[in-house]
Amino acid sequence: MSSIPNLTLHTDKYQINMMYAHWKNGSHRQKAVFEAFFRKLPFGNGYAVFAGLQRLIDYVHRLKFDEPALRYLSEQEENYDEGFLEELKAFRFGGSIYAMEEGTLVFANEPLVRVEGTIFETQLIETALLNFINYQTLIATKASRIKNVSPDDTFLEFGTRRAQEADAAVWGARASYIAGFDATSNVLAGMMFGIPSKGTHAHSWVQGHATEQEAFDTFAEALPNQVTLLVDTYHTLKSGVPHAIQTAKKMEEQGKRMQAIRLDSGDLAYLSIKARKMLDEAGLEYVKIVASNDLDENTILNLKAQGARIDTWGVGTQLITAADQPSLGGVYKLVAIEENGVMVPKIKISGNPEKVSTPGWKDVYRIIGSDTGKAIADYIVLHDETDVQEGRKIKLFDPVHPYIYKYVDEYKAVKLLKPVFEDGKQVYEVPSLEEMRAHHRKQLDQFWPEYLRKLNPEKYAVDLSTKTWEMKMKMIENFNFG
Amino acid sequence: MSSIPNLTLHTDKYQINMMYAHWKNGSHRQKAVFEAFFRKLPFGNGYAVFAGLQRLIDYVHRLKFDEPALRYLSEQEENYDEGFLEELKAFRFGGSIYAMEEGTLVFANEPLVRVEGTIFETQLIETALLNFINYQTLIATKASRIKNVSPDDTFLEFGTRRAQEADAAVWGARASYIAGFDATSNVLAGMMFGIPSKGTHAHSWVQGHATEQEAFDTFAEALPNQVTLLVDTYHTLKSGVPHAIQTAKKMEEQGKRMQAIRLDSGDLAYLSIKARKMLDEAGLEYVKIVASNDLDENTILNLKAQGARIDTWGVGTQLITAADQPSLGGVYKLVAIEENGVMVPKIKISGNPEKVSTPGWKDVYRIIGSDTGKAIADYIVLHDETDVQEGRKIKLFDPVHPYIYKYVDEYKAVKLLKPVFEDGKQVYEVPSLEEMRAHHRKQLDQFWPEYLRKLNPEKYAVDLSTKTWEMKMKMIENFNFG
Repeated sequence: MSSIPNLTLHTDKYQINMMYAHWKNGSHRQKAVFEAFFRKLPFGNGYAVFAGLQRLIDYVHRLKFDEPALRYLSEQEENYDEGFLEELKAFRFGGSIYAMEEGTLVFANEPLVRVEGTIFETQLIETALLNFINYQTLIATKASRIKNVSPDDTFLEFGTRRAQEADAAVWGARASYIAGFDATSNVLAGMMFGIPSKGTHAHSWVQGHATEQEAFDTFAEALPNQVTLLVDTYHTLKSGVPHAIQTAKKMEEQGKRMQAIRLDSGDLAYLSIKARKMLDEAGLEYVKIVASNDLDENTILNLKAQGARIDTWGVGTQLITAADQPSLGGVYKLVAIEENGVMVPKIKISGNPEKVSTPGWKDVYRIIGSDTGKAIADYIVLHDETDVQEGRKIKLFDPVHPYIYKYVDEYKAVKLLKPVFEDGKQVYEVPSLEEMRAHHRKQLDQFWPEYLRKLNPEKYAVDLSTKTWEMKMKMIENFNFG
Repeated sequence: MSSIPNLTLHTDKYQINMMYAHWKNGSHRQKAVFEAFFRKLPFGNGYAVFAGLQRLIDYVHRLKFDEPALRYLSEQEENYDEGFLEELKAFRFGGSIYAMEEGTLVFANEPLVRVEGTIFETQLIETALLNFINYQTLIATKASRIKNVSPDDTFLEFGTRRAQEADAAVWGARASYIAGFDATSNVLAGMMFGIPSKGTHAHSWVQGHATEQEAFDTFAEALPNQVTLLVDTYHTLKSGVPHAIQTAKKMEEQGKRMQAIRLDSGDLAYLSIKARKMLDEAGLEYVKIVASNDLDENTILNLKAQGARIDTWGVGTQLITAADQPSLGGVYKLVAIEENGVMVPKIKISGNPEKVSTPGWKDVYRIIGSDTGKAIADYIVLHDETDVQEGRKIKLFDPVHPYIYKYVDEYKAVKLLKPVFEDGKQVYEVPSLEEMRAHHRKQLDQFWPEYLRKLNPEKYAVDLSTKTWEMKMKMIENFNFG
């Protein structure tokens, strides 16, 4: 979006139309509470990784209907009143936002973001909020899933050319870094966020020289600290690796060390084992092996299982597009609205039971066992409940099968939704990206491995407090299905 | 990318490193020619729709290493020489670009964009070029595929909240419009490109009122020209449609007409048939039916086959993420490079035969039968061949099975790659979006239906001229596999 730095109109037309209808109706300052959540974890993973909050904060700060935006709206076939456009002109976000911290492990059907404010402002930001949070959470989840196949290896994000446009490339690189990737190929993401940016050379570098040896030697002379040589332009084992070894030997004569070779095609398990042997026999045990070529968590797991000798994984398309599930179905639902000065809980009924929303203005606590330090369940309470906060015994039960329950009383309860904006003022200090990465690693340590495994993970419990559950049941019961 | 309007560093680090190595080596002004193409059509479709050129043009015009970019680069572990940064500071794109026009039907293994210039500038733009072209071409192709299930219906792009970040939402809306969609929900895309932006209301509008009837009436009063009512908040047939009919009747009393109702859940075939009947019986034949809810070309085709009475299709996630194949594998390959003042063709050999590139600086002609006006084949020639241009008899043969051939001499040859930049100067006048839409429709008319059908389309021929083919074979033969 290089040409239009103002994202205020990055919203669905129906938000503007609802804002207008409220304004016409005089109800635009009515208070409302919305919650954003998703209903199903992506990729069959046992958890998701929340990300995108910083992007949301920046967006909220910059919300402003400028002249071009107002002129565009004045020309719409909706024929908005002048007074409405004046109202927009004066608009600033004055609401409150509570959100998970980036890098936090999150689960289905728990609020990730809660927005409180006038119906006007809570409605306007829905589209962009979902757009940002859905994408970065999706990519952070995919990245965490990939990284955890082999947590001690190095992972590079290489997806820019296949990303869904520029924003996806840079914000996706950021999300990957939060979730444990070590660097990105995208230089802009490197500059914007301070992520290490890494790069070697392409086949065209080799093709552009008379010989592969000359190409390698020239590259090594130019960038002696950053020599990773791509060895598959002609023939990996017969040409690329032997030439790279020659270059490494010449570098040694000058007291320098080649970093790595990169494999980008063929059978990566076989080639890496052979290349490792050739490098070792040449006394180049220190030269690492980087692999790329349409990798994802499954190919990496299988390559590891076959004994591949790969130290660093360059992951592109599959990560940056979350190719096996390229969208997170995050939604934003009205949970309470002001009626005659009182906030009234709202439910969205659906013929599809899993789509029935949980009414009321809620908080989420992570219940950590005092004995183990491990997470037991996430526990959703109405905003004004205090038992869990005060450490009193709580009943944990499955909201779908409530006869399955247990009581816990030795626990630590961590409130997951942090205040981000209060009455339009930012009250949250955004951590550094390094802090988010560290937070994510700590989060992973808080969960038993059965919730984290790639295939068929255990389902982590997201429970409703008794009060929340009873209110929901009562509202469903009282609802006239017609 | 609201905060960083300069996309110059939106590139892979290895491009910068190769530029640096060329600069160190004194070879950065060497001339090179690259071509961008993809190897496989997406979605099993018979064609792709080229898009993204305007974005590329804007990007090329704005290429400039500004102070923050240079500062960032100066701090990199590559430790670039000061002279290189000076060279970047003075950098402007001075090369030539030839490209397909947006909306053109394009096929695998033909050049979509050809870039000529110094190795420095041709390398720099690779990443962003692929990022833009891959995404917009992918979405335009998906949109064309969806639209052509039912070309006379109205199609709305509704995907913003599930798009992969903001750029994907707005540029995807643009690509969809080029390929035949009629409007978008994204207001910013409406403003940036002049695409009609459309919107109704959400469930929250209905939930926020005491009754559904009150919600509908209030909305209709506020926006009398744009009344499309969402009828599934409570119960589509028992509540939503009857209430919408009441509102429509009240509107009629004021001499106004409701536009449509919108179905967003449940069995859309059944509900639309029932709703149509209810509307018709109430004398509201003019009220249209809009449907949304995770639609794609397959669900739409099946709903049509079941007799669904839907006039307008709101398509979101499946379109904006191209969910069944979220990336187009476009690549950018060196085809010629200057050696001792002469341009020498280059080939990229691969153990995988379909990955062997076609060497040389090429043009593409679409061969149109003079008798039928329909496309016969795309015909790739070396840049300096003139037979096809002059209308002489040409031999069309399958480059993989060359014994399958025919001669054509009654044809019109349309040169598909248009000059866009020549020596850094834009020479192409970008058509309006309406012109691109019209161009796309005309393109569809130029192809027999068997190439356009959704399932198992005929393969359209992309042939090499005899000279091109012979050169490729000779270069493969002369290549020492090692």
